[in-house]
Amino acid sequence: MENRQILIDSLPEGKLAESNYKLVSSQVPAIKEGEVLCQTIAITIGAGTRAGLQGSASYAGAPKTGIVMNGTGVARIVDSQCDELSVDDLVVCQSGWQDFSVHKHTQVQKVSDDIDPGHHLGALGTNGLTAYFGLMKIGEPTAGDTVLVSAAAGSVGHMVGQMAKVYGCRTVGVSSSPEKCALLTTRLGYDESVSYLSPDFRAELKNTCPDGIDIYFDNTGGDILGAALFRMNEQSRIACCGVVSQYDTSTPAGGPKGIPGLLINKRIRMQGFLVFDYLSEYEAARQQIKTWIDSGELNPLNDDFEGLEKAPAAFVDLLRGGNVGTRIVRVSN
Amino acid sequence: MENRQILIDSLPEGKLAESNYKLVSSQVPAIKEGEVLCQTIAITIGAGTRAGLQGSASYAGAPKTGIVMNGTGVARIVDSQCDELSVDDLVVCQSGWQDFSVHKHTQVQKVSDDIDPGHHLGALGTNGLTAYFGLMKIGEPTAGDTVLVSAAAGSVGHMVGQMAKVYGCRTVGVSSSPEKCALLTTRLGYDESVSYLSPDFRAELKNTCPDGIDIYFDNTGGDILGAALFRMNEQSRIACCGVVSQYDTSTPAGGPKGIPGLLINKRIRMQGFLVFDYLSEYEAARQQIKTWIDSGELNPLNDDFEGLEKAPAAFVDLLRGGNVGTRIVRVSN
Repeated sequence: MENRQILIDSLPEGKLAESNYKLVSSQVPAIKEGEVLCQTIAITIGAGTRAGLQGSASYAGAPKTGIVMNGTGVARIVDSQCDELSVDDLVVCQSGWQDFSVHKHTQVQKVSDDIDPGHHLGALGTNGLTAYFGLMKIGEPTAGDTVLVSAAAGSVGHMVGQMAKVYGCRTVGVSSSPEKCALLTTRLGYDESVSYLSPDFRAELKNTCPDGIDIYFDNTGGDILGAALFRMNEQSRIACCGVVSQYDTSTPAGGPKGIPGLLINKRIRMQGFLVFDYLSEYEAARQQIKTWIDSGELNPLNDDFEGLEKAPAAFVDLLRGGNVGTRIVRVSN
Repeated sequence: MENRQILIDSLPEGKLAESNYKLVSSQVPAIKEGEVLCQTIAITIGAGTRAGLQGSASYAGAPKTGIVMNGTGVARIVDSQCDELSVDDLVVCQSGWQDFSVHKHTQVQKVSDDIDPGHHLGALGTNGLTAYFGLMKIGEPTAGDTVLVSAAAGSVGHMVGQMAKVYGCRTVGVSSSPEKCALLTTRLGYDESVSYLSPDFRAELKNTCPDGIDIYFDNTGGDILGAALFRMNEQSRIACCGVVSQYDTSTPAGGPKGIPGLLINKRIRMQGFLVFDYLSEYEAARQQIKTWIDSGELNPLNDDFEGLEKAPAAFVDLLRGGNVGTRIVRVSN
């Protein structure tokens, strides 16, 4: 049986390209005692993975070539050498961009088989948990707060706004094209939207946030962060979740003006987080998110590409801002 | 009786100069019902006041010329039209840079007359409280933490290190000249010192903080903040207290690189504060600070200039980094 794999062929200089990847074919590996063989159903692609190709600036460590591109997948067990997991179980694992992967049974997480497997990678996966913990732990929303979200149609951002609405906040989403901005208010529950591509972005940000910003959920950094800083209220919070504006480059820009001056004048708390820090609270968070999905308060959106070979294109497109919701590459049924 | 006053004669373009000020003489004002006339004994000069001459970027509002330079002083009441305060009472008030000032009795704070009046402007005044609340509320020190302080010989910084030692922290102070750096360890209780003027500043910062930085008490912003960011530990805290590196210029620099990227990777909390936010806790803090002074754990340092007319020179020199401890201008006995 063939195991198609997509390798990192070269590290990007400047923007990531499909040519940085290479599709190869190998044997399906054998498994040992305590291991399981997983067949990938779908993988998710997040902008944060781009930082792993940038080297020392990333928490993911120094990048390498010639290895299978990393990524989280939902997979079905097709062979098991352990008592804990059986053939046909559905799991979430670090599948990487390939058809088959081998894991110790302790390194995969069994998930329920009664919903779209894609949701295990989206709302109930890292994206949904990231939205939840960033908003709750750092944003600390209360009714009436104005919540600004950048990359608001993105894999994390499209859920932050909906979650903030549950807490009675007023939500403003920042996105790129007119189509995406329209989607923010028509499909994703945002009260207002604003395009950072507009030449009047700063004025429009002011107009859509007339009472200032109490919580800024920052997925981008860069100029949007710079503009938001000037609209933050006293005692406001910035949840630093991602720096998508700086991932796809080999020469990241300087930091925004007004730091630390504006942080002091307005007593802003600006705090970075990684979802992994809240591991012990994942289950409670997933239950809350499921409740919201069931009640219709949260409508998570998956954005599918069909076929493993499309993964590089899906990633490049994502970094161009092409996705709406959680980008999923469907690998098998 | 003459009331000497120092007016803001022009707003600085670039660096502040003594020529931005003008000494004039006026009549001692009369007071009305409910007011007190205060004769200034000493005024304190802090770098933060410089921001008030920069306009919209400051919490102090837009700057004006032709008015008495603002400043906090300790003063003796020489005339009173109220029951609450009597002639000869010692008070802290917004005296400005002048011999006499008039205040509503509710706008001055009576203080004890049994210690050097300068301490009411230093350790027991805004400087000491700023050191205390920034360290305690944002730094949250625990034994074994490495605490880095910039402008460590300054009016606030020289107390932060000593306070952190009370909590069992390891302290590293950043200053300018070799003389000041020596003073940090010989007189001000720091475990280590490092000069930001050194061409090897980043390497020396690494050497003096071999286990990284858990708390950075930032009085400067700018390049020192930029360097510190790369040495911060996971889950560390940056207390944003001042931006002295950017006050004395009309073209503040951009923000440090690595924001927000490093904040995310290392889950850093970066938080601005103003001492005024903790008004309700001033008295408890002052009692704690007094206890430390009495026990010898805190040795606050005052740095005196003699004579009201020296105030502009004292300020310009302060902005050049000339002070050690709290800069005080003695106006009368």
